[in-house]
Amino acid sequence: MEISDRSSLAIGIFDSGAGGLTVLKAIKQLLPSEKIVYLGDGARLPYGNKSPETIIRYTLESSRFLSEKGIKLLIVACHTASSIALDALAEEISLPILGMVTPCLPDLLASLKNDKIAILGTQATVSSRIYQNALEGEHPASSILTIACPLFVPLVEEGLIESPMTTESIKHYLQPVKEQNITTVLLACTHYPLLQNVIQDYLGEQCRLIDPAFSCAKTAKTILESNNLLNHKPQKGSTTFYTTDDPEKFKRLGEKFLGSSIVSVEKVQLPV
Amino acid sequence: MEISDRSSLAIGIFDSGAGGLTVLKAIKQLLPSEKIVYLGDGARLPYGNKSPETIIRYTLESSRFLSEKGIKLLIVACHTASSIALDALAEEISLPILGMVTPCLPDLLASLKNDKIAILGTQATVSSRIYQNALEGEHPASSILTIACPLFVPLVEEGLIESPMTTESIKHYLQPVKEQNITTVLLACTHYPLLQNVIQDYLGEQCRLIDPAFSCAKTAKTILESNNLLNHKPQKGSTTFYTTDDPEKFKRLGEKFLGSSIVSVEKVQLPV
Repeated sequence: MEISDRSSLAIGIFDSGAGGLTVLKAIKQLLPSEKIVYLGDGARLPYGNKSPETIIRYTLESSRFLSEKGIKLLIVACHTASSIALDALAEEISLPILGMVTPCLPDLLASLKNDKIAILGTQATVSSRIYQNALEGEHPASSILTIACPLFVPLVEEGLIESPMTTESIKHYLQPVKEQNITTVLLACTHYPLLQNVIQDYLGEQCRLIDPAFSCAKTAKTILESNNLLNHKPQKGSTTFYTTDDPEKFKRLGEKFLGSSIVSVEKVQLPV
Repeated sequence: MEISDRSSLAIGIFDSGAGGLTVLKAIKQLLPSEKIVYLGDGARLPYGNKSPETIIRYTLESSRFLSEKGIKLLIVACHTASSIALDALAEEISLPILGMVTPCLPDLLASLKNDKIAILGTQATVSSRIYQNALEGEHPASSILTIACPLFVPLVEEGLIESPMTTESIKHYLQPVKEQNITTVLLACTHYPLLQNVIQDYLGEQCRLIDPAFSCAKTAKTILESNNLLNHKPQKGSTTFYTTDDPEKFKRLGEKFLGSSIVSVEKVQLPV
């Protein structure tokens, strides 16, 4: 296929569930002409407390599905999958692949000039030590505090954003951030930005919370530009949603993440 | 195979994760000679917030695996799967099948003579209305209060039994039980018995918490007896563990549920 044709292809976005829709939203804002195919692997979520082997298998199966839809860029909008499975994915899929880790590194490096930083993620993301490895050589690992916050995902999924349980969870996980006066915190799981206000209340206004969705969208634009793959059509691009579990549930939860309505969702069973 | 041979076969026990080990423990206490094959579907847990279609598919795949091991009784030690998938399972598997719902019904019926009862379970178990349907005709549905407690599973999995988060979750979910002075509460999810003490503290000593593991073990014994399938050998029966995710993680969490050590766990990928 010619480059001119390929620019009209969709961007594929994949997440374990509906959380990656925060990334989709950022992409839509920055690149409104782009068509998007989104897959949420609701039947097997969460990924964050599973083994690397399982996470890699699920990521490959989900990515194959999107790849077969004919896409020009694959975005792994799940920090867990991005932390564990990108190498395996790059070996198999011959497409530009963008995860959630790389786009934030320049921002983190800049912050590390002044301060320690904290990175909040799932157990699998934290155990992977991907941020320490990526920033190694530039800064000592001790200047990066990583904290697994496994209760945050179910709290968000249950819509318990403003509850005493969430307040207690934030205290439980983020006390070290407060005690060490860390002022840069990366929300390294797509669910966590939904807790941004309550986390901000606990940590105080001096603390900067980074939602990687925006950096990811900007990096996606750069990749498409440099590969001559940007869609320059004036009309808005379509969005197609797939889930491996109940479409109605995806729609209900997805609208919370997206902040707008989802018209239709198609069910797919993986591996196909 | 002759009946005399079949009695030496194992009992198959299946759960979405390690929670069903509370049932395994009760079976081992009551029927120490029985061999057991246990499967925890850790790669796809939790089941309780997924769609009935997905829960049925996972239950069939897990049960096929155990059935192919050559078992004489299949115990579905997962309340969610027991509430949703037993009919589909009975259509496919020609073995005695025991779920978690039926064994508790006589006890619940007795309690309903004096009082309303409360049933705590996953979202899928509560949505299935299986307890109301099973007790229909005997008592009005209004005398059964069902409460979905989706945060309880991750709290137990994270070992946060005695934490302020758990206290807040218990308050959040169980306030209606307290307000309505309900004194019989069924812990209808294999994870919940690990919260028994903290739930008891909140509801008070007058409240009776029922852990269905013991009723399930007693019913298993009755089924084996009436089918002439009890293993009468004097030596202790072996136990074999399988998981679909990381064996080390299963071992670690499993030992909490079992209260004793697990020597080895084998990994299996479903569907086989």
